[in-house]
This record gives sequence, structure tokens and C-alpha cells, in this order.
Amino acid sequence: MRHSQSPTQKATRQHTKQHNARLVLKTIYTAGDVSRADVARMTGLTRATVSNIVAGLLDKGLVAESGYGPSLGGKPPILLNMAEDARQLVCLDLGNEHFNGALVNLRGHFGEQVNLPVNGRTAAEALNLVYELVDQLLANVTAPVLGLALGSPGLIDATAGLVKQSVNLDWHDLPLRQLLQDRYNFPVYIANDSHLAALAEYSYGGDDSRNLVLIKMGQGIGSGIVLNGRIFYGEGFGAGEIGHVSVVENGELCTCGNHGCLETVASVRAMLRQAQAIADENPDSVLAQLRSSGGTVSWANVQQACEQGDATAQEIVTQAGKTLGMAVANLVGILNVNRIVIAGNVTQTGDLFIEAVRTSMTHRVLPKLAAGTAVQYANKEENLVLLGASALILSQGLGVF
Amino acid sequence: MRHSQSPTQKATRQHTKQHNARLVLKTIYTAGDVSRADVARMTGLTRATVSNIVAGLLDKGLVAESGYGPSLGGKPPILLNMAEDARQLVCLDLGNEHFNGALVNLRGHFGEQVNLPVNGRTAAEALNLVYELVDQLLANVTAPVLGLALGSPGLIDATAGLVKQSVNLDWHDLPLRQLLQDRYNFPVYIANDSHLAALAEYSYGGDDSRNLVLIKMGQGIGSGIVLNGRIFYGEGFGAGEIGHVSVVENGELCTCGNHGCLETVASVRAMLRQAQAIADENPDSVLAQLRSSGGTVSWANVQQACEQGDATAQEIVTQAGKTLGMAVANLVGILNVNRIVIAGNVTQTGDLFIEAVRTSMTHRVLPKLAAGTAVQYANKEENLVLLGASALILSQGLGVF
Repeated sequence: MRHSQSPTQKATRQHTKQHNARLVLKTIYTAGDVSRADVARMTGLTRATVSNIVAGLLDKGLVAESGYGPSLGGKPPILLNMAEDARQLVCLDLGNEHFNGALVNLRGHFGEQVNLPVNGRTAAEALNLVYELVDQLLANVTAPVLGLALGSPGLIDATAGLVKQSVNLDWHDLPLRQLLQDRYNFPVYIANDSHLAALAEYSYGGDDSRNLVLIKMGQGIGSGIVLNGRIFYGEGFGAGEIGHVSVVENGELCTCGNHGCLETVASVRAMLRQAQAIADENPDSVLAQLRSSGGTVSWANVQQACEQGDATAQEIVTQAGKTLGMAVANLVGILNVNRIVIAGNVTQTGDLFIEAVRTSMTHRVLPKLAAGTAVQYANKEENLVLLGASALILSQGLGVF
Repeated sequence: MRHSQSPTQKATRQHTKQHNARLVLKTIYTAGDVSRADVARMTGLTRATVSNIVAGLLDKGLVAESGYGPSLGGKPPILLNMAEDARQLVCLDLGNEHFNGALVNLRGHFGEQVNLPVNGRTAAEALNLVYELVDQLLANVTAPVLGLALGSPGLIDATAGLVKQSVNLDWHDLPLRQLLQDRYNFPVYIANDSHLAALAEYSYGGDDSRNLVLIKMGQGIGSGIVLNGRIFYGEGFGAGEIGHVSVVENGELCTCGNHGCLETVASVRAMLRQAQAIADENPDSVLAQLRSSGGTVSWANVQQACEQGDATAQEIVTQAGKTLGMAVANLVGILNVNRIVIAGNVTQTGDLFIEAVRTSMTHRVLPKLAAGTAVQYANKEENLVLLGASALILSQGLGVF
């Protein structure tokens, strides 16, 4: 589907060299335990060029010799692999009631993790909490840092490194990348948290499709779009903002100022509110009996009720799935992406929810497109935003994704 | 927004040379009347490299010397421009009751045009009509043909050159590109007609945004998406199929098999059907009085009624605009593209329709995204598909867009 790009700047030999160096590293990263001859064959580069590039990668410590391959008559060939602990990635997720941070290695494996409660901090105080999080992580690094990436809710200009608007944290046009770069002196990348979650599923999800949409269902609903292996940000960095598209005519007022947004009817928060109302109205209901002594219905209670076959709770989940299916139909009709992935704690409701999404989508979009679209729960579930942050650093810093 | 691509194949000096040759041609095409020194400055290439590439372009006749620039002390520099009539482009549009064809020059100016009525031809007969159209055009060529491009309704695999499904013409998995290439022996490109219309607006519309969505409103509703200057096809080549996303719960049965598709309520055909019903029910209505003696309400009648201030006709148009606004809200929320362009004969209703679209969209998507989005009628209106076909040939064949 990708046509050759119309040229916008000159190509130089320097570009060619950089390109081929990245190609070699990517080949070693993807294939693992390969000889120089394998790399030459897989890339089409000469063995001399490959040896030259590999020498540089060994020098930097990014690649290490990992053993010997089978002999093909002569000396057994030396195998190469990524030296996965040669660098560490500082990954942050600001999307929850705790700021989460992790040190991640070059294969996406987690080391030290730190969680700091936000406790309502906003503006400069929230920024200081980010610094504290990074400082605590850096106190534990065991290898040079390749870069830092951060996912935040809101409109994040990933190119300019600017938080354009993050309502909860009260950040507006905050030059977060520059602030972090000045303080820590290594490459910094920032992006919307749903965008990073989509990149995580793309990079580590184990499916080889080059395009996908990941829908993050939590308190709100957001999505990230990966097209041809890259995050699609949109011109205002708001691509995938499906949580604030209206689905109910004259519906409930949303925090965004409009009425009937998808978030107000299909999010976990919306489902919980409906469950709470039922429990409050009817003390004999299954939901009322399951809830805690304090009277609050939890998400676990809703799941329990569904599992026990409570029709009321099942109806709440099914209706939310049906409504999300309308949004999914729009994603399929507009993007014709073959893989739509749902993540977040809604996945705990299992088939009930996702079957409702699938059925609803199938009835609302061109049959040929619906038939070609898989709607699935995410393969990677935990720490999706942190994983996406690591993928962004690896993609930008080394070109391996 | 575009990050560096992860490498998938080796770069070679040959790539560098091709890339720079295209860059020089694109610079001459875009800037027009430039000296070799100008081109060197604009591209960052050395004057020797530019002179070398220009010599090749002069040889091929694609570029011509167009005069002399102002002297900067010494000899006045020779100016270069695209030789716009050096090649002809064979452009076809199969989206109407006539198959339309045109010979187009390298600047998108139309020469010979041929229209052949389809008269219900399908399958092999429709294919023969395409051949007849091309044959008639080729009888009039005045320069070598750079290529042929064809826009057709349906699912068109632009990469494989395959008509996967075109219901009206009864083509299924038809290898149309190969058939035409074998017969005519020059490069052939095929694509969905709405996709080409979007490319036309991008290439010739005079706006410098790299992204846009064009909505084609006629008997049906389709759209084309241009991202970063390229048609976005989608994995099944169905991107932009918004006409068959449901917008009315349990609405009217659509030809696609689903209910309540956008086409069934917001297309020109749907508006006409509503207008006809009103005229039939009420002989005193403005619509009844305007219609022809045969009793059929035409699209011109609907416009006249609107212009005369008839509330009934205006309500039909406004409601259609409101419904289209729902689809536009989804486009904005998903893609965050800053420019949505509407084309087709609905544009004749002027402000009434487009204001309804804008208002509806604004109330249905995140205010910050709505505020950044222009909803406009197309700058180029006539022959959009033919123009898009010419842009596809120029883009693929010469890299000038």
C-alpha cells in the first residue's frame, strides 16, 4: 500500500550508510543469533559492508557475539545477537492515579519499577513528581541510558515535544521534552498514552500486521492508530480521540462540553455508574448483594455478577459493547484496518463484551470490510504504555521496529 | 508527524541517484522557470549533479529551456521549466452512467475528451467499452503516453492492479491493470474513484496541507483519504467507505445488506427520494409545483425550492447535512485531519448544506479538534476523478507530487 514517497530533500551517501547500519542492527535484533554471512544474505549487503557495520556495533556494545553456528564445512561461524542489557530505557506512564516508571532493557524486559501516587498534584507540582520519578529510576540504572520516553493523557505534540493540553495535570503548552532533556541530558520522547499503547501492541504483540488500532478502555476511552508500523498522530496529535465522538443524540453532558460522547456510555466508569444505580435502587439485586459494606459497586462486583449469570449486569456490559461496536464500525469504515485491539480492564469481562462489539460492528459496516477485520483483546495487557514508551525509544533511537 | 521509517531493504547508490533525479524534476515542476543554480540552491545538490540530471531530463524532453533570468552581473542564466506537452496522460473515470476519458498534459490541462454511454453494460461488455474508450483517445494523441490511470467505484486493489469488486459493473477479481498493460504497453494504474478524487484535490486544489479527506456526494457517498501526500488505501483498499457505515438504528435496508447506512439518508439520491415523496403527497407543495410535467422531482428542483425559501426542501437538505456531520465528526475524531472537503452536486446547495455539516460536526467531536478542522467544498469541482488519475500517473511515473 505504500507508494514511493515524493522526494523532499536530497539523498546523500551519509544517508545510505546510516540506513544500512540501521538495517543490519534491525536484522540482528529481529532474527537473533545470526552470523555475519546470514546478515549479508538477509539484507543483500556485501559481507565486507556487514563486517564493517558489525564492527561498529560491537564497539558500541549494542551487539555481542552469542556463540557458534553449525559448521558448513569450515570453521563454525560466530553468531551475533543484540546485547539486550547493554542499554537501559527510562519509560514513564502518567495516565493513572500513580505515575509509573520502569527501567526497560533492549528487548522490552522490565527491571526496576517505581510508582508514585499523584494525590491530586497538578501543574508545577506534577512536573516535580515526574522529576522525582526519573531521579529514583536513575539511582538504579545498571547500564547507559539510551533515552527516556513518556506517555501522558491529552494532546501531546510528539514532534515538538510539547504537552499541548493535559486537563487532569493542568499542563498547557508545556515544553516537557526540552525540560527533561535539559535536566537529564539524553534523548527524550513524549507521546499520548493511548498512542504508545498501540505502538506496544504493534511492537511486542506478536502479530505481523503493519496496521492496527488499539482501543484503551478504562475510566475514559482513547485509541491509538499504527499505520505502516508507525504511530499515526494526526495533524493536531489528536488522532484516535474516539472517546469524545458523540454516539447518543442529546445524551449526557461530557467533561469536554459536548453531549453523549462515547465515554459517557461505554467506558468502565459509565458501566460502573449504571451498576451503582441499579444496586442503589434495588437492594435485592445481585449487584447490591455483591457490593462492599460501604455500598460501592466495584468493577470486580460487575464481573462477578456477570459470571453468576445476572441478566442486569450482563445487559450493562452488552450494551456498552454494542455502543463501542458503533465506534469500531467507524474505525473499520474509515481506516479499513484489519486488526482492532481492545485493552484495559474491560477485557476481564471476556467474551460477553467483545462478542457484543463484534456483532454490533458487523451490522454497521460494509460486509466485505467487516469480514476482513479481527476484533481482539490485546496480546500484551499489563504496562502497555510503558512498553510502548520502550518501543518508541527503540524505534527512534535504533530503528529496530 | 512522519518519523524515519524503519529500514526494510538496503539502500544503494542507484537509489540515491534515482531519488535525486526525481527531486530535481519535482523542483522544476513545482517552482517553474528556474535556473540550474536555483535548483542547486533549493535542493542542496551540487551544481555539477544538477547539470548532469538536467541534461538527462532535456534529453528525454521532459524539461525545456524556457527563457533567461535576470543577470546577476555575468551572463543571464537559462531558465528551465517542465515541457508540459511533452507527454500525454490517458485518464479514465468509470464512475458514472458514461465512461469518461481524457487526454491530459503534464500540468493537468485537458485535451481530447470522450464520453461513452454505459447503457447497462457489465462484465466483458463493460471491459470492451473501456477498450473502446482508450482506443478512441489514443487515436488523438499528440505526444508519447506517460501512462494510463483509471478510477472505478468499488474495492480496487491499487497495488495488485485488481478490481476486487465493482458491483455495478459486475467485475470480481478482474486483473484490469494487466489486461490494459498487455493491450496498450504503457504503465497502467487503477484505483477507487473516490480515492482519486481526493488525490486530485490534494494535487491541484491549491492548498498546501499534506492531509485531507474528500467526501464525494452523489448517488452514493464515498470518500478518499490523503495522508502525507499519498492516497491512504487501507488494508483491503476500502479506506474511506463511509457511505456504508450505519447511522440510523434499524434504518432502511441498504444495497450492501445492512440497515441505515449513511447513503440511505444523506446522499443526493436519498434527498431526492424524500423530495419526491413530499411532492407526491402534497400537490400544493413548492416541490410539486416546480417538478417537470412527468412528475419527477429533479435535483435542480430541490435547489430551486431551497433558493425560494421553501422550508420543506431546506429541511431535507439541512437534515442530510446534519447526518453527514456525524460521519465528519468520526473522520475528525479518528484521523484528526485538518481539512475535510466535500465534492459532488450537493455543493450546488451552497451554504445551507455545508453549514449544517459544520454545526453538526462541531457538536460531536472534541472541541479542540473541531476548532482545528476546516470543512469546505472542493476547490476543483469538475472532472475530479480524471484529474486524480492524472495526478496518480504524475506521482508514480515522475514523482512530482
